[in-house]
Amino acid sequence: MADPVYETALGASTRDRITLLGQDLAEDVMGTVGFGELAFWLATQRRPSPGETRVFEAVLAALADHGFTPTAIVTRLTYLSAPDSVQGALAAGLLGGGSRFLGVTEDCGRFLHAVLSEVDTLPDDDGGWDALALETVEECRAQKRFLPGLGHHVHKDGDPRTPRLFAIADEEGLRGPHLELFAAIGRVHPRVLGKTLPLNGAGVCGAALADLGLPLELLRGFALLARTAGLIGQLAEELRHPVANDIFLSVDLNNRSVPPDPHA
Amino acid sequence: MADPVYETALGASTRDRITLLGQDLAEDVMGTVGFGELAFWLATQRRPSPGETRVFEAVLAALADHGFTPTAIVTRLTYLSAPDSVQGALAAGLLGGGSRFLGVTEDCGRFLHAVLSEVDTLPDDDGGWDALALETVEECRAQKRFLPGLGHHVHKDGDPRTPRLFAIADEEGLRGPHLELFAAIGRVHPRVLGKTLPLNGAGVCGAALADLGLPLELLRGFALLARTAGLIGQLAEELRHPVANDIFLSVDLNNRSVPPDPHA
Amino acid sequence: MADPVYETALGASTRDRITLLGQDLAEDVMGTVGFGELAFWLATQRRPSPGETRVFEAVLAALADHGFTPTAIVTRLTYLSAPDSVQGALAAGLLGGGSRFLGVTEDCGRFLHAVLSEVDTLPDDDGGWDALALETVEECRAQKRFLPGLGHHVHKDGDPRTPRLFAIADEEGLRGPHLELFAAIGRVHPRVLGKTLPLNGAGVCGAALADLGLPLELLRGFALLARTAGLIGQLAEELRHPVANDIFLSVDLNNRSVPPDPHA
Amino acid sequence: MADPVYETALGASTRDRITLLGQDLAEDVMGTVGFGELAFWLATQRRPSPGETRVFEAVLAALADHGFTPTAIVTRLTYLSAPDSVQGALAAGLLGGGSRFLGVTEDCGRFLHAVLSEVDTLPDDDGGWDALALETVEECRAQKRFLPGLGHHVHKDGDPRTPRLFAIADEEGLRGPHLELFAAIGRVHPRVLGKTLPLNGAGVCGAALADLGLPLELLRGFALLARTAGLIGQLAEELRHPVANDIFLSVDLNNRSVPPDPHA
Repeated sequence: MADPVYETALGASTRDRITLLGQDLAEDVMGTVGFGELAFWLATQRRPSPGETRVFEAVLAALADHGFTPTAIVTRLTYLSAPDSVQGALAAGLLGGGSRFLGVTEDCGRFLHAVLSEVDTLPDDDGGWDALALETVEECRAQKRFLPGLGHHVHKDGDPRTPRLFAIADEEGLRGPHLELFAAIGRVHPRVLGKTLPLNGAGVCGAALADLGLPLELLRGFALLARTAGLIGQLAEELRHPVANDIFLSVDLNNRSVPPDPHA
Repeated sequence: MADPVYETALGASTRDRITLLGQDLAEDVMGTVGFGELAFWLATQRRPSPGETRVFEAVLAALADHGFTPTAIVTRLTYLSAPDSVQGALAAGLLGGGSRFLGVTEDCGRFLHAVLSEVDTLPDDDGGWDALALETVEECRAQKRFLPGLGHHVHKDGDPRTPRLFAIADEEGLRGPHLELFAAIGRVHPRVLGKTLPLNGAGVCGAALADLGLPLELLRGFALLARTAGLIGQLAEELRHPVANDIFLSVDLNNRSVPPDPHA
Repeated sequence: MADPVYETALGASTRDRITLLGQDLAEDVMGTVGFGELAFWLATQRRPSPGETRVFEAVLAALADHGFTPTAIVTRLTYLSAPDSVQGALAAGLLGGGSRFLGVTEDCGRFLHAVLSEVDTLPDDDGGWDALALETVEECRAQKRFLPGLGHHVHKDGDPRTPRLFAIADEEGLRGPHLELFAAIGRVHPRVLGKTLPLNGAGVCGAALADLGLPLELLRGFALLARTAGLIGQLAEELRHPVANDIFLSVDLNNRSVPPDPHA
Repeated sequence: MADPVYETALGASTRDRITLLGQDLAEDVMGTVGFGELAFWLATQRRPSPGETRVFEAVLAALADHGFTPTAIVTRLTYLSAPDSVQGALAAGLLGGGSRFLGVTEDCGRFLHAVLSEVDTLPDDDGGWDALALETVEECRAQKRFLPGLGHHVHKDGDPRTPRLFAIADEEGLRGPHLELFAAIGRVHPRVLGKTLPLNGAGVCGAALADLGLPLELLRGFALLARTAGLIGQLAEELRHPVANDIFLSVDLNNRSVPPDPHA
């Protein structure tokens, strides 16, 4: 076999120089490129505009931490059990970032994208978006499909992140077709479903990320990036105000041994 | 047992409001706080100054991606094998962030901190720092201890990240005792070791993070945060320019079956 | 909130006794119950017969190690990078146990189960099974669905694990409906597909596990249990005959830096 | 670079044959070699005797599950949050297998081995072992070092696994120097410490594994293998008698938002 060659536009080093995405890391990136901007650049291999960076960082802020979620509890318990491995505690927490708790962002972005891919010409006014949204919600209802991003178990009157993210996108001129369609779904769904559900903040994040042109396959990855910062915050708080052992004991001391229930 | 109470200053929600670190998430964080700034704030529960944010983000940039490291290869291979789980691919990559490849940052920060903790009054000029550094290097040599952050297997004449990070810290007035001591070690070690070694960029990152007052127990965590952005970049590139299957085949096709070698 | 109570039939301890599945761990399990038998018992909360244990352990043997798979390479590279954390190296390897490389076992078990769930009365002779299999293969073909467990990229003339596992199941009187249907698919598919494909060994493992009454949701879990033993073997070999650094260098030294390819 | 070659004695395949450890997998392993035996064989590249297998499987049984440990809670919470990834739930649980909750086995085995490595001629009677043990305990006390494997937070009058594992090892003629020294430490330590502590079951497991000649670097790995079977049991129980959501809610509903506590 001929020597394989592995191409990459990401990090590369020579004896006296490090490049990243074709830039000189020390001279052109460090001290100049913010971390959110860099994460966007790494994922798309193009430098985002300041407006794109602002929307992107607003999404990351929206998803960074939600208090004692399963992922946060898992990171704290894993650190309690294996304090020798910070990487293990963070990795364990991220592994909860799957279909249920962190999945809305990706599901919503992909769903909106799939609808848009079927449309020949995108609408150019609210009426047009409302018509497309109505058709979309009706089709979901007919197929008894779940419409991702609609509803929230706590914020029943509206998720405060949602109007804010729309406003930021508008300020930056970055309300694209995914956000337009999601907003229209918010307007028309009561006509079909007979009740008004809030547009979920995690869902609008997915729409915004898709409008930014980020890879759909990795939308969940950006939620995980945001969550990594949140989990470091959880560990930092655990170090000074520990609760993991109390959580563990609250389970362990309330356990009740029962007879086996054989699986048929 | 009385109901336990779990306190946190991180994320909290009511029906119509989300707070994070005592701030209104939608109004005061989204659109206003950059992602690096937020990560710092989450870890320390205090808002960093713009200068602190700039140094912190320069460190994250320095550590985000180094091309085909073991962590990058692991993330790509895991995604090849289990494309259903982006969280698994990222977590697997982060698990390589241990003592050898990502550990220098933490080891260096902790080492410098331990030296500084033994000193009653910190030096106030280069001469004083040089004296402390000389004592430190001599003690390491006497104890045949490894001095973290000294030397680099590629950048033998100097790691380009090192002078740049010192310069950024100086521009922001944030060269603290950890960076001072590390710089002095760079100046004096040839007198003791008889050869000049470069100050490693990952090591200077540890010194800078320690000077920013970030928790020493989590210095590795910031390297992992930076690397999460890098690994998303690796996945994004793998999606469009895949190499993981070639890497796998280059190993699998070059395997040679040998007889067992029994462990005594 | 009233104190919650968490019931379990698994491990429980008092000051002088440990029970597991209602058994006295020290007296009735240690020294008496083999590890495969125990794993089966833990998963089903019923003790398997010796024949069930033999089939189950044959499946675990079939899936334990396949040489330099992505999971094996990942475990070795992670250990190279973070030798401080054996748990991290094993966890990283297991994270590759997803849809592509370890998924056939689960996919095949679930697929056969879904077909059997639609049948009112199960066939009682080969002719009857062939008829059901023919219908199944034709339906898959009509729907252009992939039939899990059919074909193997290396063992094109037959996977040696397949006849052996059927024989072991027959010896123990444990060829149930999943194995019967899979065998019949092996007999009839050439009539529909126009070519003869081998029954994959990982697929027949899924059929056997389903016949043993193990939970379908966890069929992948048993492949992961088998693989854990394999990955420990990989680490043990890596400790004495290391290859991970050579694998890493073979990628790193063959990297080629290319210009960024901006994502549209 | 010449084509690298990667040697392995583990799994290998040709078109019509699969070998593992030099054996024909289908003919000589499946249906013949139990799972505990195979795990031992994979780790040492030598086939264990029936007695060695029995001791090894007794150790695995002793470590498989301890009810609602942090690792069990983590696996259940991760599955709650990401039910799409069984591998993620198992990997997350294993990541808690670090220094604190699963570390005793490895720490104890390594500690005993280090003591034995310093001895020129091993004792050949209880008196000799007691003398070595006395010296060992006194030295630990003088250095204020923790003696691994001594004491248990629940089984204060004795861990029931301990005498059982000694008995099994004796029945199989496999009480080697690690177990001898650990038993002697159990006899003599009250003379030095002024109180009687039980020999921990996880500790005696480490002594037994070391006596079996298993690699010291991987003793934790065998605890993790045992725990993998336990975690599959936890998931199987969670599927039918779920508690993870109640655990999550017991934390989430008892959270109290407090002001930030800035890190100095």
